Amino acid sequence: MIEKEILTPPEHIYPIDEWRVVEKKYSKKFLAQNETIFALGNGYFGMRGAFEEGLPVFQSGTFVNGFYESWPIVYGEEAFGYAKTGQTMLNVTDSRVIKLYVDDEPFVIYKANLVEYERALNMKEGTLDRQLVWETPSGKKVAIRSRRMISFEHRHVATIEYEVTLLDAKAPVVIVSQVNSNSTNQAGEGDPRLAKSFQENVLHPVAHFQTNNRIILVHETRTSMLSLACGIDHSIDSECTANIETSSSEDEGQVVFSIDGEPGKPIRLVKYICYHNSGTAPPKELRDRVDRTLDRAVNHGFDKLLNEQKEYMDKFWYRSDVQLEVANPRAQQYLRFNLYHLLQASARAEGVGIPAKGLTGQAYEGHYFWDSEIYVLPFLIYTAPRLAKNLLKYRYSLLDKARQRAREVNQKGALFPWRTINGEEASAYYAAGTAQYHINADIMYAMKKYVDVTGDEEFLYNYGAEMLVETARLWADLGFYLKEDSNKFHIHGVTGPDEYNTVVNNNTYTNLMARENLWYAVETVEALRQKNGELYAALVHDTGLKEGEIEAWQKAADSMYIPFDKEKSIHPQDDNFLNKEVWDFETPL
Amino acid sequence: MIEKEILTPPEHIYPIDEWRVVEKKYSKKFLAQNETIFALGNGYFGMRGAFEEGLPVFQSGTFVNGFYESWPIVYGEEAFGYAKTGQTMLNVTDSRVIKLYVDDEPFVIYKANLVEYERALNMKEGTLDRQLVWETPSGKKVAIRSRRMISFEHRHVATIEYEVTLLDAKAPVVIVSQVNSNSTNQAGEGDPRLAKSFQENVLHPVAHFQTNNRIILVHETRTSMLSLACGIDHSIDSECTANIETSSSEDEGQVVFSIDGEPGKPIRLVKYICYHNSGTAPPKELRDRVDRTLDRAVNHGFDKLLNEQKEYMDKFWYRSDVQLEVANPRAQQYLRFNLYHLLQASARAEGVGIPAKGLTGQAYEGHYFWDSEIYVLPFLIYTAPRLAKNLLKYRYSLLDKARQRAREVNQKGALFPWRTINGEEASAYYAAGTAQYHINADIMYAMKKYVDVTGDEEFLYNYGAEMLVETARLWADLGFYLKEDSNKFHIHGVTGPDEYNTVVNNNTYTNLMARENLWYAVETVEALRQKNGELYAALVHDTGLKEGEIEAWQKAADSMYIPFDKEKSIHPQDDNFLNKEVWDFETPL
Repeated sequence: MIEKEILTPPEHIYPIDEWRVVEKKYSKKFLAQNETIFALGNGYFGMRGAFEEGLPVFQSGTFVNGFYESWPIVYGEEAFGYAKTGQTMLNVTDSRVIKLYVDDEPFVIYKANLVEYERALNMKEGTLDRQLVWETPSGKKVAIRSRRMISFEHRHVATIEYEVTLLDAKAPVVIVSQVNSNSTNQAGEGDPRLAKSFQENVLHPVAHFQTNNRIILVHETRTSMLSLACGIDHSIDSECTANIETSSSEDEGQVVFSIDGEPGKPIRLVKYICYHNSGTAPPKELRDRVDRTLDRAVNHGFDKLLNEQKEYMDKFWYRSDVQLEVANPRAQQYLRFNLYHLLQASARAEGVGIPAKGLTGQAYEGHYFWDSEIYVLPFLIYTAPRLAKNLLKYRYSLLDKARQRAREVNQKGALFPWRTINGEEASAYYAAGTAQYHINADIMYAMKKYVDVTGDEEFLYNYGAEMLVETARLWADLGFYLKEDSNKFHIHGVTGPDEYNTVVNNNTYTNLMARENLWYAVETVEALRQKNGELYAALVHDTGLKEGEIEAWQKAADSMYIPFDKEKSIHPQDDNFLNKEVWDFETPL
Repeated sequence: MIEKEILTPPEHIYPIDEWRVVEKKYSKKFLAQNETIFALGNGYFGMRGAFEEGLPVFQSGTFVNGFYESWPIVYGEEAFGYAKTGQTMLNVTDSRVIKLYVDDEPFVIYKANLVEYERALNMKEGTLDRQLVWETPSGKKVAIRSRRMISFEHRHVATIEYEVTLLDAKAPVVIVSQVNSNSTNQAGEGDPRLAKSFQENVLHPVAHFQTNNRIILVHETRTSMLSLACGIDHSIDSECTANIETSSSEDEGQVVFSIDGEPGKPIRLVKYICYHNSGTAPPKELRDRVDRTLDRAVNHGFDKLLNEQKEYMDKFWYRSDVQLEVANPRAQQYLRFNLYHLLQASARAEGVGIPAKGLTGQAYEGHYFWDSEIYVLPFLIYTAPRLAKNLLKYRYSLLDKARQRAREVNQKGALFPWRTINGEEASAYYAAGTAQYHINADIMYAMKKYVDVTGDEEFLYNYGAEMLVETARLWADLGFYLKEDSNKFHIHGVTGPDEYNTVVNNNTYTNLMARENLWYAVETVEALRQKNGELYAALVHDTGLKEGEIEAWQKAADSMYIPFDKEKSIHPQDDNFLNKEVWDFETPL
């Protein structure tokens, strides 16, 4: 995966801070990038770091992990075994917007005269904080302080504290808190790393509810048949007189707070946000779920939610912090930033995977790749093994689809998809998709690490063994013994992690990983047979395991051909890698 | 290219005949297949062998070589260098239908009680003949004799003689001769070898004309911007009284002959058909062209057109016939059938190529592949070198687009498209399309054979040399010297003729052909320099040829690596071919 050029933020705008990512000045140039950097999420849902006031915006994105629409993939030229159904994580109902008017003048950050400004991703406490002073066109000074968080403790809850204080003169203040579902999906014409844009709205309204300051919108998708409810509720706290009006329709709603603002008297609005989704629950039930969650959140109040967030974060950093021995505050900041986003991508990813971009944007369609197992899981195994286990269980839940996929491409065992949300292969490019067979060994590799570190044999024997049997079968079926090479076990026609060299023979990484996979399958099945006859019998029953298979895996693993160039004394990437034309960097294209 | 299962025709229905393909009984099972076998064509246009009466029909196809509509190719996942525009040869205005009613009962072959029946592709004379006796539902016997031909002499003309004779009783006879443009295109969902179906009509009416028994329809395509005129005219000859009515609209027209049929008095209708197409001419001009051609055809009359056809065929067989020394009449029939269809695909293909299926159907979209140069041209070189030259000139006319395509994929020289009508690459699958670089050497190979056989140095120096320079450049740029292999010249990442093994290194066929290409370029450029300074200067000017290039080609050719397995003493198909897993034919899938 190659990223577009990343703009390096200048230090006077983005100062060093070991625990925060700080922005001292609004900068249009970094708008899109900062929406990603300042994104919040808890693994269940995520919001890009767009401003409360709606504008300026690159993409006002909110994403619920695993909430997608599917669509038929069209090929220029079809071929056997191609993935048939695309899956796109959707930009869902936008619940974040809070608009502010003073003297009927809208506060829009890129036009506003800002006397003070600071925005910070508070990685220590798990919030996105902003404080600023706005001088209105008529010269009045207004302090605005906001704090936003997506709760780690309460999986379905986000909340925004939005406080406005007139500093030097009275004025009418209007705060409009909105929810709306006309979200557009990011288009990525021609770039497979970006997401699919839909021709029309994919969220179809099925119900909307309004009670006091609460609005709930329920939508569903037509093809994937998933439904989503998004609710907002509010509390306002001020010595100033306030009038409140709530209105809503199918696709949007708003609560308008009209306040006679007086200098020095803060107006503090708390917006409570809740998402629930389901593949089966009717609208009414989803609404009830949202109601119950919002009731609890409002009952807690912002301060208690914040305290719970801080406690969660304290525990996270206690378990997970990496501190540099040689002081390097910028590096320390970056390090914590990465750890923090790992948390945001995974914390409450229960029953789903971890999208390639977490929940910060639509690139890679919100799909789960090998990234989960190879890049994210090792971190979770050592710091939050329960989350690691959740993710492995999620893979296990896809085993039947992986078996089916193996049948589709005429292979034995199970073939996990290169990219997916619902377990079906969604890669429209075989050579850099399904051909990356290594994903199967990657999943088994992560599982082995999990079991080795945690000693969780219960998981291994109840779930892992079955996956090991099916993946081992796949490798045994895919490779073959090459007579001309002393009957070494070869694996041809696969793509390794280097997607610029696709469909090669004996990719070293793949062969090494397949060997591990096979060995671990043998070891696990043997151990199970000796330790737990009952579970072993169940495994044999569930997989139709035959005696000779284990020996076959052992033999394939022991005979695995691992490319090695004696002259150069290196392992080449694959059989032909060292025979390539050397790139001519001298001559300009 | 693999074909679907071909049904073997039983001998009692399809008897052996050295000069004809004969059908003694209408057979539904062979309907689709026979429309192809009994197809007529002259390289400019072609008609499937569907019955005059319209039904039964698999596809009532008429095709004008190079008359296509284009459309944007949609990919599941796009990548750099993919072909952008598909091209589909269209099923054009249908001019063949002649419906017959006796006693107001329609003659429909699959329902009719046929007392006698014979249909024959007359390969000796170049016609499709049918004679039968129909017993009508009321018991009257009617002899119907028809003869259809597409003229080799008159490129734009087809004609049908349709003779009806009441044998035993008088009856009202109605003959309806039609033209209509609501032709559907054959759909090939999911099979890249078949054609694209369009959602709506792609032939848009622009004008229609009617005079006496003549109707002309003019249509155009919206994206490729091509226009087509189809005209029909008629003469009727009978002792019976006939009334004639002509009517037409934008997309169809018909001439109705109402005759008081009397026994023993033949009613002989001749239908004259004409097609003209253009990328530039306005409708009025196309109409004029059709008018002039039809005037001439009607003036000639059927018998003269038939005599000219026979003369053409006599010459063709004199030049081209292959006679088996050991008598084998069935093999002789098949042999002549193949020669005859080669003629039908190529005779008047002037300024266009030869589609993979000739003009017998829409499979492979009417595209030109290497088939033209490797399979068809050698035959033409020995039997009709002028046609061979036409086809080579057609390739030359695409040279600029081939240069452009080379630039697109970041290569020097020219890269001819794997499949095309208009010169742009139309293959939506890189691995079995553009990667078949051998097409470039194939074209040069055919040209060399043409020049060797005919001695046509004028063509070689005026057209061939430029193509040789650009294709040699391509090979020199594509390959490289591999230090580890004694600086042999290697060509990696190409697909040879075996499309089941794509994107391989050092495909033996490709390397051998590329070597020929390079040597021939060196030889030709050297000869031109010595023989004709003026043309050589022009070549240098047109191609920017530099001195060092010729030496570079010579070196690349001389150093060309040709895979050879010493132990087995064979040339393997490519570098890895002998390392493949041997297919397990024993175990059922």
